[in-house]
Amino acid sequence: MKVSVVMGSKSDREVVQKTVNKLKEFGVEVDFRIISAHRTPQLAHDYAKGLEDIGSEVLICAAGKAAHLAGVMAGITTLPVIGLPIKSSTMDGLDSLLSVVQMPSGIPVATVAINGAENAAILAIQILAVKYDELKVKLKDYKKSMNDKILEDDLSLQGELK
Amino acid sequence: MKVSVVMGSKSDREVVQKTVNKLKEFGVEVDFRIISAHRTPQLAHDYAKGLEDIGSEVLICAAGKAAHLAGVMAGITTLPVIGLPIKSSTMDGLDSLLSVVQMPSGIPVATVAINGAENAAILAIQILAVKYDELKVKLKDYKKSMNDKILEDDLSLQGELK
Amino acid sequence: MKVSVVMGSKSDREVVQKTVNKLKEFGVEVDFRIISAHRTPQLAHDYAKGLEDIGSEVLICAAGKAAHLAGVMAGITTLPVIGLPIKSSTMDGLDSLLSVVQMPSGIPVATVAINGAENAAILAIQILAVKYDELKVKLKDYKKSMNDKILEDDLSLQGELK
Amino acid sequence: MKVSVVMGSKSDREVVQKTVNKLKEFGVEVDFRIISAHRTPQLAHDYAKGLEDIGSEVLICAAGKAAHLAGVMAGITTLPVIGLPIKSSTMDGLDSLLSVVQMPSGIPVATVAINGAENAAILAIQILAVKYDELKVKLKDYKKSMNDKILEDDLSLQGELK
Amino acid sequence: MKVSVVMGSKSDREVVQKTVNKLKEFGVEVDFRIISAHRTPQLAHDYAKGLEDIGSEVLICAAGKAAHLAGVMAGITTLPVIGLPIKSSTMDGLDSLLSVVQMPSGIPVATVAINGAENAAILAIQILAVKYDELKVKLKDYKKSMNDKILEDDLSLQGELK
Amino acid sequence: MKVSVVMGSKSDREVVQKTVNKLKEFGVEVDFRIISAHRTPQLAHDYAKGLEDIGSEVLICAAGKAAHLAGVMAGITTLPVIGLPIKSSTMDGLDSLLSVVQMPSGIPVATVAINGAENAAILAIQILAVKYDELKVKLKDYKKSMNDKILEDDLSLQGELK
Amino acid sequence: MKVSVVMGSKSDREVVQKTVNKLKEFGVEVDFRIISAHRTPQLAHDYAKGLEDIGSEVLICAAGKAAHLAGVMAGITTLPVIGLPIKSSTMDGLDSLLSVVQMPSGIPVATVAINGAENAAILAIQILAVKYDELKVKLKDYKKSMNDKILEDDLSLQGELK
Amino acid sequence: MKVSVVMGSKSDREVVQKTVNKLKEFGVEVDFRIISAHRTPQLAHDYAKGLEDIGSEVLICAAGKAAHLAGVMAGITTLPVIGLPIKSSTMDGLDSLLSVVQMPSGIPVATVAINGAENAAILAIQILAVKYDELKVKLKDYKKSMNDKILEDDLSLQGELK
Repeated sequence: MKVSVVMGSKSDREVVQKTVNKLKEFGVEVDFRIISAHRTPQLAHDYAKGLEDIGSEVLICAAGKAAHLAGVMAGITTLPVIGLPIKSSTMDGLDSLLSVVQMPSGIPVATVAINGAENAAILAIQILAVKYDELKVKLKDYKKSMNDKILEDDLSLQGELK
Repeated sequence: MKVSVVMGSKSDREVVQKTVNKLKEFGVEVDFRIISAHRTPQLAHDYAKGLEDIGSEVLICAAGKAAHLAGVMAGITTLPVIGLPIKSSTMDGLDSLLSVVQMPSGIPVATVAINGAENAAILAIQILAVKYDELKVKLKDYKKSMNDKILEDDLSLQGELK
Repeated sequence: MKVSVVMGSKSDREVVQKTVNKLKEFGVEVDFRIISAHRTPQLAHDYAKGLEDIGSEVLICAAGKAAHLAGVMAGITTLPVIGLPIKSSTMDGLDSLLSVVQMPSGIPVATVAINGAENAAILAIQILAVKYDELKVKLKDYKKSMNDKILEDDLSLQGELK
Repeated sequence: MKVSVVMGSKSDREVVQKTVNKLKEFGVEVDFRIISAHRTPQLAHDYAKGLEDIGSEVLICAAGKAAHLAGVMAGITTLPVIGLPIKSSTMDGLDSLLSVVQMPSGIPVATVAINGAENAAILAIQILAVKYDELKVKLKDYKKSMNDKILEDDLSLQGELK
Repeated sequence: MKVSVVMGSKSDREVVQKTVNKLKEFGVEVDFRIISAHRTPQLAHDYAKGLEDIGSEVLICAAGKAAHLAGVMAGITTLPVIGLPIKSSTMDGLDSLLSVVQMPSGIPVATVAINGAENAAILAIQILAVKYDELKVKLKDYKKSMNDKILEDDLSLQGELK
Repeated sequence: MKVSVVMGSKSDREVVQKTVNKLKEFGVEVDFRIISAHRTPQLAHDYAKGLEDIGSEVLICAAGKAAHLAGVMAGITTLPVIGLPIKSSTMDGLDSLLSVVQMPSGIPVATVAINGAENAAILAIQILAVKYDELKVKLKDYKKSMNDKILEDDLSLQGELK
Repeated sequence: MKVSVVMGSKSDREVVQKTVNKLKEFGVEVDFRIISAHRTPQLAHDYAKGLEDIGSEVLICAAGKAAHLAGVMAGITTLPVIGLPIKSSTMDGLDSLLSVVQMPSGIPVATVAINGAENAAILAIQILAVKYDELKVKLKDYKKSMNDKILEDDLSLQGELK
Repeated sequence: MKVSVVMGSKSDREVVQKTVNKLKEFGVEVDFRIISAHRTPQLAHDYAKGLEDIGSEVLICAAGKAAHLAGVMAGITTLPVIGLPIKSSTMDGLDSLLSVVQMPSGIPVATVAINGAENAAILAIQILAVKYDELKVKLKDYKKSMNDKILEDDLSLQGELK
């Protein structure tokens, strides 16, 4: 089980590291790369083309502003491509979101929330879990742990309020 | 191979039918339903809970305005959930898009373009193709046919311009 | 007189505490809970269903981003549901506002301003005051005190400007 | 049981009539008026002041563009005020929505969706139902009928798809 | 020559003081007040009604969020009303701007930029200058001084760049 | 009493004619011109410079998209400049509104609603009325007639509803 | 003198033809192509790479929604790339505009107005005119003709108004 | 080879200096000026008119809010005009962007990203490179160095991850 995680610039690292961490938490192998659709177009092209050869089954692309990385790679590979729009210094992430999600017919990008780094990972894991049963179990545990965390927070609130 | 396609209202039919058609074109079985997160909350809950029992491996939810359907179901199932924001009579689809995509950490919705009905289908197929090799082939053919269609359009333009 | 105040995450506490405080100031009993539409869907469902059994007459739901909590609960209860959109780290609260207010026909959410914590409380009190006359008096006093506060501020400004 | 429904201009009639119709369907008496915050400020002031004298228990205000009507009346009465933002010829209703919902602390307006005429009525009925038990029953029937309508639509879709 | 400057809350003081200062710089008498359209509606009404009696010839209203103050007063007086939208903690001032500028036909508000405190003053002075010739001269001097300031800045830049 | 009304293109005529008509209704002389900030910059400059020579006391500028006309002329004249943002085929008038209203400190443009043609006229008349008493009377009559029109509309609604 | 004009889909033809026509009007040779960044990524890559070989000196790219074409080609060529954002059926062109203009540092796209087809051509001609003096003359004539057209329109308005 | 870089206010210096630096890095002579479309309209007019006389071949204009500088100068010169929208304290740069990019037919402004200072320079250099071959070489080196920088960043990431 392997997921490629590509970010357009090393400045996106702080956000994207959470994606990588979450994938590893679930035991998914990660190929974590810096590749720019605009600065290294040939590499972007080649990397997208070679995804299956390196055993990747899902691709996650993170980028900000005019965020073309996910769309460009989705034009080349037939693997599911997850787009993670990064909030930049202007426009509060709306530019990234629209650049990632508004793809033309035939070339979808599975877009998650602006800066939704963990969700990019969970979505990749859900996709892999269609094939790998062990991930299904882990996802159910994860869902339960989120549920339990809220119950605990609520319990602790009730305790405090008494 | 089975995908559940749920729309929140029969008025979304015109858009969502394209999703169903595209899935069938690829030989994917479709459970096409009308279920509302707000009007039939119990059914929404039960349907999301029973997705695996009926053999669905991916869920596509289409809704407009305060489009909660995808998010609500993503809170229940661990299957990948694709959100298709429908443009309604006000706000040009921005309300639907933000309601679908801006999910909190841990519960992703794989969002496609506003009214991107075919892309919801293609994304579901790409997800299934992680597991089912026959879909991989079909996706490559589909990609090629899109490529060829543009080449043809361009050729015809060149012919006309001569 | 009892109002349920539910927030989707403990991180909303800072804002929502003001709602709770204002309700208590008016002598309204508050059931203050952390319940997530996405992380604890069953609890959300059960809590909404049981609101009348615990004596709540109005429900206030606070949530951010794709803020589905108010809408989901409004799909279950017939009590008036007040939605309090919380500003999150991106999109300046517009995502929360649209997710809360743009509800489909038949399932309204009474939406107040982004981060309008006190207004959620006052609205709940106004709703209760339709039934409970003692609240009507308190609301008129409250309105008068707001009026007096402005007059005082103005007086103090006039004094300073002399 | 009486609700005041005020619109800022007769051009809002087409939308607002649905509010009035829905209220009457539930057996609620309606005082349906045209009053403008800007063109008839004295009347607006007087009407808001006299709401309780004419027996109104909830006020619904519909207006478009810089939609001040609901906010202005909420500054005068302590009854719950429901704001219905009307979509006008520019800005797709965003101006109306923000003008209605973004009220300052202490003077809430219970805002429903842009052009959400029926929801303004249902919200008013939910508010009245806090006091009047007969409305509670009707609201539950209404909720059930919405649920049944979706089930029927779904059934009819299933029939067609066979 | 007298201008009324009204702000909806003392929290707007920091911005609005610049309006007052600029007016005084031009020798215009200022009636600087805190009056809220929502919290002191009667005072707002009375103040707008009495503007001519106190000798004011232009009214400047500053408010944020659902900024109704300018519109409400413009509904009462026939003096020119200048609206100064104040940026609040959410929505970056867009809510204030739209609430102030999108007035219905017949009741204009002369809107300046978000937080454009000095421009509210200059506009008032330009309006007064239609009547008072001494202000015309001062405005021309002011325009010249702005022109000269840029020339100086440019000169200093050229010096630095040499 | 004379007002200059300038539009950037003859395609704005349909909207701007209402401004001209309203001014004439109030007995104000109008110099109605087509001048483009971008296509006829010299004329724009000269016209703004000569406004006082031709006896104009207020300038109204109507333009769409990147609507620079009002701002450019406000940079030259010290007369009050009213900006009328025209809705164009994209962006629903938001581009025009922001281009007109967001002027830098020192050079205000008195902005009215998008396509608010009559309000541009009324604002100009209110400005002139600071100087010309006969307009004050007419404005009060106009305000009264708007008030009466609403009362009539309401009366007619009440009649119909009986 | 040659300009490449590439559109992402034949559905953009209606808008983009105006670009081509205007270029030809100025005697510029045009290579008019349909190439999609997403559907024909290899062709897009090759075409951008070969621009200089076919003698093109400027590239114009037109695309809608998540409009990546201009950005992708700008990543490959060092020729000036002009981006023409096309308005699609949702979002009023804002998605296209932001996808085209918000390019990361080092890879500019010279963006013109949404659907600004003629401006894409004029900008290309202005760029060529830096090198080709005969275009400078034509541009000055064109500017003069625009100026004259406004003068004529104004004259005709003055005639009509007499 | 000479480029004029004009900013509307010295407060834009921090951003615009990067434009100037990048141009100089490429050996392009720069005429760096502070000229305001609104505060120094005559100078703006004269400077635009005299661009060719001082040997400038491209004009870059930086401005914020209602950013008219680029448009105004583009109305006068036939040189290519690059618009650099500056983010100001409100509206996150959207006002600047729309004011710069949405130019009417016939007078394009080549708009780069909000605060995209380096891109304004690179675009100017690409335009000059159409004429000056030595810049073509430098641009290819620059492109290669951006490519190499990403490869290095990626290599360093791979090293760290091992």
